[in-house]
Amino acid sequence: QTQETKQDISRIYMDYNATTPLEPEVIQAITEALRDAWGNPSSNYIAGAKAKAIISRSRENVARMVGGKAEDIIFTSGGTEANNLVLQTAVEYFRRNQRAAERDEGNHNGCTGLPHIITSNVEHDSVKLPAEHLQRDGKAEVTFVPVSKVTACVEVEDIIAAVRPNTCLISVMLANNETGVIMPVQEICQRIKSLNKQREQLRILLHTDAAQALGKIRVDACELGVDYLTIVGHKFYAPRIGALYVNGPGARTPLCPMLFGGGQERNFRPGTENTPMIAGLGKAAELVTSNLPDYESHMRSTKLYLEKRLKAVFKDKIHFNSHYPSSDILPNTCNVSILGPTLQGWRVLSSCTRLLASVGAACHSDSENRPSHILLSCGVPTEVAGNALRLSVGRGTTKEDVDAVVEDLRKTVQLLEEIN
Amino acid sequence: QTQETKQDISRIYMDYNATTPLEPEVIQAITEALRDAWGNPSSNYIAGAKAKAIISRSRENVARMVGGKAEDIIFTSGGTEANNLVLQTAVEYFRRNQRAAERDEGNHNGCTGLPHIITSNVEHDSVKLPAEHLQRDGKAEVTFVPVSKVTACVEVEDIIAAVRPNTCLISVMLANNETGVIMPVQEICQRIKSLNKQREQLRILLHTDAAQALGKIRVDACELGVDYLTIVGHKFYAPRIGALYVNGPGARTPLCPMLFGGGQERNFRPGTENTPMIAGLGKAAELVTSNLPDYESHMRSTKLYLEKRLKAVFKDKIHFNSHYPSSDILPNTCNVSILGPTLQGWRVLSSCTRLLASVGAACHSDSENRPSHILLSCGVPTEVAGNALRLSVGRGTTKEDVDAVVEDLRKTVQLLEEIN
Repeated sequence: QTQETKQDISRIYMDYNATTPLEPEVIQAITEALRDAWGNPSSNYIAGAKAKAIISRSRENVARMVGGKAEDIIFTSGGTEANNLVLQTAVEYFRRNQRAAERDEGNHNGCTGLPHIITSNVEHDSVKLPAEHLQRDGKAEVTFVPVSKVTACVEVEDIIAAVRPNTCLISVMLANNETGVIMPVQEICQRIKSLNKQREQLRILLHTDAAQALGKIRVDACELGVDYLTIVGHKFYAPRIGALYVNGPGARTPLCPMLFGGGQERNFRPGTENTPMIAGLGKAAELVTSNLPDYESHMRSTKLYLEKRLKAVFKDKIHFNSHYPSSDILPNTCNVSILGPTLQGWRVLSSCTRLLASVGAACHSDSENRPSHILLSCGVPTEVAGNALRLSVGRGTTKEDVDAVVEDLRKTVQLLEEIN
Repeated sequence: QTQETKQDISRIYMDYNATTPLEPEVIQAITEALRDAWGNPSSNYIAGAKAKAIISRSRENVARMVGGKAEDIIFTSGGTEANNLVLQTAVEYFRRNQRAAERDEGNHNGCTGLPHIITSNVEHDSVKLPAEHLQRDGKAEVTFVPVSKVTACVEVEDIIAAVRPNTCLISVMLANNETGVIMPVQEICQRIKSLNKQREQLRILLHTDAAQALGKIRVDACELGVDYLTIVGHKFYAPRIGALYVNGPGARTPLCPMLFGGGQERNFRPGTENTPMIAGLGKAAELVTSNLPDYESHMRSTKLYLEKRLKAVFKDKIHFNSHYPSSDILPNTCNVSILGPTLQGWRVLSSCTRLLASVGAACHSDSENRPSHILLSCGVPTEVAGNALRLSVGRGTTKEDVDAVVEDLRKTVQLLEEIN
């Protein structure tokens, strides 16, 4: 926010679900590491040791943020890699057990046929597309469980009903990036763990992509009961790297590397470590651990004020695509449609003079003229979904920002309605 | 160098093949991007556009450094990912053609049996290990062509002789990280291209890992004639990311993504772009393009001075593991053994008070007590290899640094010889 206003005083950023600016302390941690910890962490002398120490401290901070142990954290290049790694691991682990069972005919472990993955129909592309790729490639079966069109939430019973003997992985995001809906990951894990105890087959692995949840709501991997949890730096004021939480990688929980090389990250993810970015990720995680309640309550009250102002100005013309009966929503996400034949989301945004926001996931910004398939899946009617604006507030968004944005929207809507 | 001396005035860094400090201009480019270009490059507004522009400029600079076009550059998390991507692409491309040929029985394209990869026996682990993994997994056959024990160089004829009907990829590093030997990649490419014209089979793809060559010698992907060339930032004063040059990715040259997600890098390598690191990589590439002759001649004269001083001080006790008849060597690399029963490389380095160097690849620093398998493959006798020190100088290494290091080594050797 501060950076943005410096560049262009009239613009107000409300797209914190797309990416966040870096906290000044995070920039400082990165810059210091760039200057002073450029040594190769694998080197045996002082320059290497300094880098190694930074990485180790960051690992502890990232672990603490998600309620895990340092050894459960594997640094990756980002969320896309972390998500792909989980899906590929599940398939690979199933196949290894299948091959082992074929050698030892008495013990089948249920690993017959193709591995089966269960996920929702509102996942980020970095889960959806690798799943589709595995399916198309004949390497896995995939069930995309539809979310309820009433709650926008995946139903626990639907997940359980989708389980097959060859199910190897369930991957459900912790919070949706467009609607902000928080998914019942903990309940799913509890139910599947009971099921795992009864099954003769290989246990079903549990993954959640926590990209949109971290830094906004409390996230504890142990409480959730997941085996894997995806961490994405640039959604919580950290740089563009990520990490994967794995509950005991290689021991309690399988992890099959996608890359092979110099042995870094205990061979789970080789490649010379990106020390400065890891330093930044650690610092940002530390900030989340220390300040989450403040961040959360600030974002929540700002969002509530935004919704109140929108309702006051647009009255019956407003439709909240992030309000669902009995569903919890991220404290910062307000997905809203202003109803009217000329008020398509892309049209409103391109006519606004101050608001910077998006109509959906940033990765889909090329296809902005089509209504979001996520919103359609959540039961939002096509003509409403086409008008959607995803407004997401941040740690620094003020009530004045909200007032300015609502005024900007009011003028824009007036203009667009007059023209037509 | 400057950073290091600030931290510890008495230490002299001569391990520039392990990693390099970042140039001040590079740090500045990264820091500016961290502050001002944090927007999501996929976003349609100003913050995104600024990031997109930086990425596009960097892509051009990286392309120019290797004599390619901007569209030939795919940013990756580093060299390990780039190398893995090439090996996996070759195998995947072969298999796709195999499946296509099976559907259309008339046309076999030579894609029968397993795909076959040819590489050398002195490659970096990020080529060697994925190749071994593919082999172990039953997904590819691999020939590790031994380098000549006279020249430490892979012989073109040996590569040609290793070609089989099912050969799909040849991957030979441009310069070895331990000996500095420059490999005849251009000749290999010329010969294979003639062969490709005669063969009915799928063309053999050509890859070189240029990690150690970039920033030290001129590298032109078109002149070399490679299809793929691996670029590793932290070896040329850039940050810890990398890129893969691909001669017309997806068109002239196949490229099969390992990751699936938000569509970045034209779907070849999705994941929200690491704008600041890409900015740094671009700046460092620009510096190489502008200053390579100066960098090269400085490093060469510094290394020659180092070798002269070592010879003057240690006389017959010195053995250069980076001198081979008729082989070209990187201008900065001096791999040297000081002969004597108590002068093992690890022992000398841990007794030195000023020199920071390594006995081989940083990734192997855990196994430092064993002689380098690379040097053994190059014909260095075991007892000589065990004493190896890999000294690699940088852009800022001075003659005073060299004098100090040689004096440090002289004292250390004297001490170690007296003790025993």
